[in-house]
Amino acid sequence: MSAPDPGLLALNTATVREKCTLRQAAEACRRQNIRGICPWRDKLAEIGAKEAARIIRDNGLKVTGLCRGGFFPAPDRKGRQAAIDDNLRAVDEAATIEARCLVIVAGGLAQGSKDIGGAREMIRDGLGAIFDHARSCGVPIAIEPMHPMYAADRGCINTLAQALDLCDELDGKNGSAMGVAVDVYHVWWDPELKRQIERAGEKRLMGFHLCDWLVPTTDLLLDRGMMGDGVIDISLIRSWMEGAGYHGMHEVEIFSKNNWWKKDADEVLLTCKMRHETVC
Amino acid sequence: MSAPDPGLLALNTATVREKCTLRQAAEACRRQNIRGICPWRDKLAEIGAKEAARIIRDNGLKVTGLCRGGFFPAPDRKGRQAAIDDNLRAVDEAATIEARCLVIVAGGLAQGSKDIGGAREMIRDGLGAIFDHARSCGVPIAIEPMHPMYAADRGCINTLAQALDLCDELDGKNGSAMGVAVDVYHVWWDPELKRQIERAGEKRLMGFHLCDWLVPTTDLLLDRGMMGDGVIDISLIRSWMEGAGYHGMHEVEIFSKNNWWKKDADEVLLTCKMRHETVC
Repeated sequence: MSAPDPGLLALNTATVREKCTLRQAAEACRRQNIRGICPWRDKLAEIGAKEAARIIRDNGLKVTGLCRGGFFPAPDRKGRQAAIDDNLRAVDEAATIEARCLVIVAGGLAQGSKDIGGAREMIRDGLGAIFDHARSCGVPIAIEPMHPMYAADRGCINTLAQALDLCDELDGKNGSAMGVAVDVYHVWWDPELKRQIERAGEKRLMGFHLCDWLVPTTDLLLDRGMMGDGVIDISLIRSWMEGAGYHGMHEVEIFSKNNWWKKDADEVLLTCKMRHETVC
Repeated sequence: MSAPDPGLLALNTATVREKCTLRQAAEACRRQNIRGICPWRDKLAEIGAKEAARIIRDNGLKVTGLCRGGFFPAPDRKGRQAAIDDNLRAVDEAATIEARCLVIVAGGLAQGSKDIGGAREMIRDGLGAIFDHARSCGVPIAIEPMHPMYAADRGCINTLAQALDLCDELDGKNGSAMGVAVDVYHVWWDPELKRQIERAGEKRLMGFHLCDWLVPTTDLLLDRGMMGDGVIDISLIRSWMEGAGYHGMHEVEIFSKNNWWKKDADEVLLTCKMRHETVC
């Protein structure tokens, strides 16, 4: 594999979330010549989506996605409707900032429930309830399969195959209004990975997220590694993505409470650039 | 679901490993009228397999399995051969204690490697290298799919489908010398679970391990829960196992550094019995 185009590097604001507002993150990207950004909704909420759009535009950034919609399962109808309403607002925000897609972290079991099949039905129904609005706004919905260790509390769509089955069900076999965000952290272990990336193809591959799996991993959520510090063969997975027609950006999203979140944003971004060039 | 037959409860020695030798574990089982045991090899190593067999027999216990073979990937030929040799010894030990099967924890990436595909080939080759000896000893090989969070360092056979593909490849579609151990902790999240249990059927279903997934889980390895304390619908999975023809025992295997491992073995076993009756 040749090194990736540096112009494809993008920053997910989760990577610098303890140090930066959206404006600070966007300005750091411009300083480091990083061309894309994926904000989380908490950063938008601080300033409003219109102001966020202006900041992003002023810094010359593409928006690879908006994180995140989802979290559909809830114990009662009222809770499920509240989740749908919130997702409809997320679609509007994604449209306002001209995001490539709305990233969906589907949600885990409903509070107090052990019914994972039922939770998956709530997710399907929730996605179905926002689908028309998203399509009419021109906002593709990108389901991000979650690592199975998050099935209980964050997302019980756990494989690319499962996410693509949902896309086929809700969007039709040939649709392009729903697809997937492939985060190497969540899917690197999957024996079906190459085959399902090929199945997804250009239309369904809406995002590519980078970090690394550390050995040992000391926290289920907040101990993700910088690319190159773990065991994921990122360049191999990139080759599969490109082979399947993905031409989008490579978005760095690192949850790292005790390491990268403590560092200065410019130092983090410089490291991202170097690692993107050398190990991705 | 009606409550399970209490006579089917078995103890995996990992559940009491900080408090009990094999003799102490076996005697605790007899006191609590638990009829089956699955020892780990470290407990056998302390006394030898023949003495272990005697202790188990004296306490009237069935042996649901021997934990564990596997850990096949290694960086060089010498390391891989050493793993195979060790697995051949494990087969002999399993035969000596008349274990229902040798449980295989396949192993993760070879030291220093990011090649998960290569590791999976080493696992296939390693299993192939012990297969004839195991069959001639009458010891079925039971692959235990590991939760994907163990793919790097413990086992990169991560789904029941993947394990069953290996069985079909090495043992033939209709063989019964190789099968799977289904641990609810490792597989509860799998959207294919019911279908793959059905596919496995009576001949391939060689073990059924119980514990629970806690929310939150504070350690990737050593924070497993007692049945009923987490979110796994164990009785539903048992119904699938029984529907597919499984008639074996229900083996409790709990890695719990800060909770169950600290308690007195009889207290742990009493709790296992109660929970087996009420939530499994």
